[in-house]
Amino acid sequence: MDITKILSQTKVNKSSSQPIYLQVAAFLAERIKENLLPAGTKLPPERLLAEMLGVSRTTAINIYRQLAQDGLVNIKVGSGTYVTGCLEKAETPLPPIPWEQLFVPHLKNPLSSILKDLLTDCSNPNNISLAAGMPDPSLYPLKTFEQLLNKHIGNLSPLDLGHLPTEGYPPLRRAITNLQIGKGIDVPEDNILITAGSQQGLYLVNKVLLEPKEYVIVEEPTYIGAIQIFQHSGARILTVPRLTELPLSILEDYLIRYRPKLFYIIPSFQNPTGHVLSLQQRQDLLKLAARYQLVIVEDDAYGELYYDQKPLPSLKALDQHGIVIYLGTFSKTIFPGLRIGWLTGPSVLIKRLAQEKQYLDLHCNNICQWLLTTFLQEGIFHNHLQTVRQEYKKRRDIMANSIDRFCPDMLTYTLPQGGFYFWCQLPAGITSTSLLRETNKIGLTFVPGEAFYPNNLGNNKIRLCFSTQGEEQLTEAIKRLGKTLKSLNKKVENLNIQSNSSSGIPII
Amino acid sequence: MDITKILSQTKVNKSSSQPIYLQVAAFLAERIKENLLPAGTKLPPERLLAEMLGVSRTTAINIYRQLAQDGLVNIKVGSGTYVTGCLEKAETPLPPIPWEQLFVPHLKNPLSSILKDLLTDCSNPNNISLAAGMPDPSLYPLKTFEQLLNKHIGNLSPLDLGHLPTEGYPPLRRAITNLQIGKGIDVPEDNILITAGSQQGLYLVNKVLLEPKEYVIVEEPTYIGAIQIFQHSGARILTVPRLTELPLSILEDYLIRYRPKLFYIIPSFQNPTGHVLSLQQRQDLLKLAARYQLVIVEDDAYGELYYDQKPLPSLKALDQHGIVIYLGTFSKTIFPGLRIGWLTGPSVLIKRLAQEKQYLDLHCNNICQWLLTTFLQEGIFHNHLQTVRQEYKKRRDIMANSIDRFCPDMLTYTLPQGGFYFWCQLPAGITSTSLLRETNKIGLTFVPGEAFYPNNLGNNKIRLCFSTQGEEQLTEAIKRLGKTLKSLNKKVENLNIQSNSSSGIPII
Repeated sequence: MDITKILSQTKVNKSSSQPIYLQVAAFLAERIKENLLPAGTKLPPERLLAEMLGVSRTTAINIYRQLAQDGLVNIKVGSGTYVTGCLEKAETPLPPIPWEQLFVPHLKNPLSSILKDLLTDCSNPNNISLAAGMPDPSLYPLKTFEQLLNKHIGNLSPLDLGHLPTEGYPPLRRAITNLQIGKGIDVPEDNILITAGSQQGLYLVNKVLLEPKEYVIVEEPTYIGAIQIFQHSGARILTVPRLTELPLSILEDYLIRYRPKLFYIIPSFQNPTGHVLSLQQRQDLLKLAARYQLVIVEDDAYGELYYDQKPLPSLKALDQHGIVIYLGTFSKTIFPGLRIGWLTGPSVLIKRLAQEKQYLDLHCNNICQWLLTTFLQEGIFHNHLQTVRQEYKKRRDIMANSIDRFCPDMLTYTLPQGGFYFWCQLPAGITSTSLLRETNKIGLTFVPGEAFYPNNLGNNKIRLCFSTQGEEQLTEAIKRLGKTLKSLNKKVENLNIQSNSSSGIPII
Repeated sequence: MDITKILSQTKVNKSSSQPIYLQVAAFLAERIKENLLPAGTKLPPERLLAEMLGVSRTTAINIYRQLAQDGLVNIKVGSGTYVTGCLEKAETPLPPIPWEQLFVPHLKNPLSSILKDLLTDCSNPNNISLAAGMPDPSLYPLKTFEQLLNKHIGNLSPLDLGHLPTEGYPPLRRAITNLQIGKGIDVPEDNILITAGSQQGLYLVNKVLLEPKEYVIVEEPTYIGAIQIFQHSGARILTVPRLTELPLSILEDYLIRYRPKLFYIIPSFQNPTGHVLSLQQRQDLLKLAARYQLVIVEDDAYGELYYDQKPLPSLKALDQHGIVIYLGTFSKTIFPGLRIGWLTGPSVLIKRLAQEKQYLDLHCNNICQWLLTTFLQEGIFHNHLQTVRQEYKKRRDIMANSIDRFCPDMLTYTLPQGGFYFWCQLPAGITSTSLLRETNKIGLTFVPGEAFYPNNLGNNKIRLCFSTQGEEQLTEAIKRLGKTLKSLNKKVENLNIQSNSSSGIPII
């Protein structure tokens, strides 16, 4: 039967509670089932259908959608709507859910898997890892936490295990206030937000201060996790090279040219370079920041891990203008599994960040906040820091001696005064990834330099972490490194002789 | 001296390492200090300056910016650039940092403070709170956790306190896999993500699946925290009334009209209504979801808290098509301070969510993940649930009896078969907020109905939580409620007599 004729028979009851599109769809479904509209029949375009029935275009669209949902027609984009035939409603197997298509678009970048791998890279028992930047598990004060728990659990009120203020467990905020006074940061409790590691502090700062396409400045090289957070949020990243001196003229040029909103910096024992920003440069940076209203995000993860003289005052301690946001963490000093850090900033900022944190997780977990409070209140933290400083200083010196012994003239580095890392320059002709490929074969991992650059530089640098391995392992690791370097160096020399070139461009 | 003349004397050294704009700015600064360009002098517009000097417009802009930074000129938008006079560089006090202006724009909505207040509302010791939806602190298995800790700490490897996979502590993922098999959800470990409470699960789902202006469906009324997360992300919220039956025709109409991406639903012992979705409706909903590729986010916070017969299978247990994301939590069954929940979904989704979670906090805290694992492995959870079910059932019945006794004919409710809440309809003429204002005076708080609606409805409803108070307190609370209701009712009657109206519109 002619499609126009069939459609002209459609009866629509406008006063019915059933929507018009459903009435028409039901009518057409019947005709399809009666085979009056056989499989393959092309139905009129939506616009024409609307005209023929005297209904809106939306209704026409909904009629075809309904029939498509019922499996009675097939809407082919760019071609038309065709009767599929008389099927019982939805007996055909449905296609699988296309999850990946449902996801919000996101930046897929090679870096994003690096940090993840670093977190779980300790699988091969023969492997010595100088990769993950963590304290040594054998130095975790596990026994102390057990004793603290048993000593204090009697005083713990069940209410302390219910919901807490998002800003943090009040006794912990007080304890951190006191901790900071010792570091020259004298601010009230409401200037402190307890976070799930300094990672969360940085995430929140980014959420509250940066919109997509806004400018942010980072050092180059710098902490991978920070680069990832900024890239992920769609910010535009400007880089200032972290040399012995921070080139403030480049920074000022950026400030004039791009009006960036914030500068993420690790002033002391920087990750990965180990550099310490001088007092003069700290003061100059703060002046510049105040003049241009540039927010400074100071990551002080390593400040307490000094092995020679006491560290310089933090930017926050020097900050007279309230322009510095300070990120602290216990992941490097106690252990990462606490997942507790903190953020210090003006109370108006803390309030806004807490509002944002509420969406993320309501508040940090109570047990760790409470345990940490007792740890700080009893003055154990102070003694613990002295113990780990002594041990890490020893390891730093072992690594330095081993490099000088096993890798003479092959690795260039500056002795770090604190923190966890040696930042080493490779011999000309050897790239960090080719080196890693080789050392992997004999059981040695580290982080290639590229991981610390937002722009694929650094392929002739490597980061070696000395905190997680004991004396013997450290020596063995550097021995393996030296052996690999020597053999790669020989290859490079041979290639250079063959090609008569000595450009020094990494070729392996 | 004429400004044109002065500018014509400007000497620019293009081969100097100093940028041109700084050279010109220094030259002009000198002239200003010599008072050759006195305070108030209007300088030429940037375009003209660029022409006069034969430099780019950007250089001209930078010259004025530099002078402005040095406090020597004042750039008045829409007017021009004026010499301010001879000031020494930046000796004037800098203005305070305008933090609020630096913040990314965000939705300020009255709801956002409600949840926050609920979290910290237990301050007045004479007050009886039926507000916060929490387990009773006196039922927290604190002693058990202490015993578990002492029993198992010897087996804890320090490595367990280092960094963990973002997806969760592997033994906990296994334990939850087993827990779910008992609930008819038979999925492998890689379908599970450990989250900081189900709050974080919802936050992550929202981040990964919803872009601003995309449509999401929620029940009306529903959990405040979910409304907040969706509003905050800029999604468009469609609501389906949660009546005894879920009106699936409205849902289908939305699906056709708006193609929403996800539907957030609490099928069992819904918050706040206490309703349970029937088996037939669960099946119909799943069919609809599969047909339209609508992702179902099932919040099952209360599923284990049943007081009569065993609950119906969860949507996830019935889900044949892999369209359901399941949110579980230990906050309602054990205690909120653990901050541990989980999310079950296809592994492709878990991977994507974990990537996102890595930015937030790297992973959940190890101590609680480990303690919880021992709690589940030793089968203590099962016994704990039986204990709390018995106790909460008793409290539910006490609340029901108290309402019938102290508030006869004033509160309408359906007896909840599980969960924590009575959802009560107020007498005509009384609003929830006016009632709360009155009960507050005599020491009683609860949550007004509006808090559960994204659109300011519900002002004649209240939610009473029976889980956190013991027998005596519950009875006393409802007594106070009845007394207040009676006196308000009398006022309404008097007003009705005076105005001769009996419209039933809330007036108090």
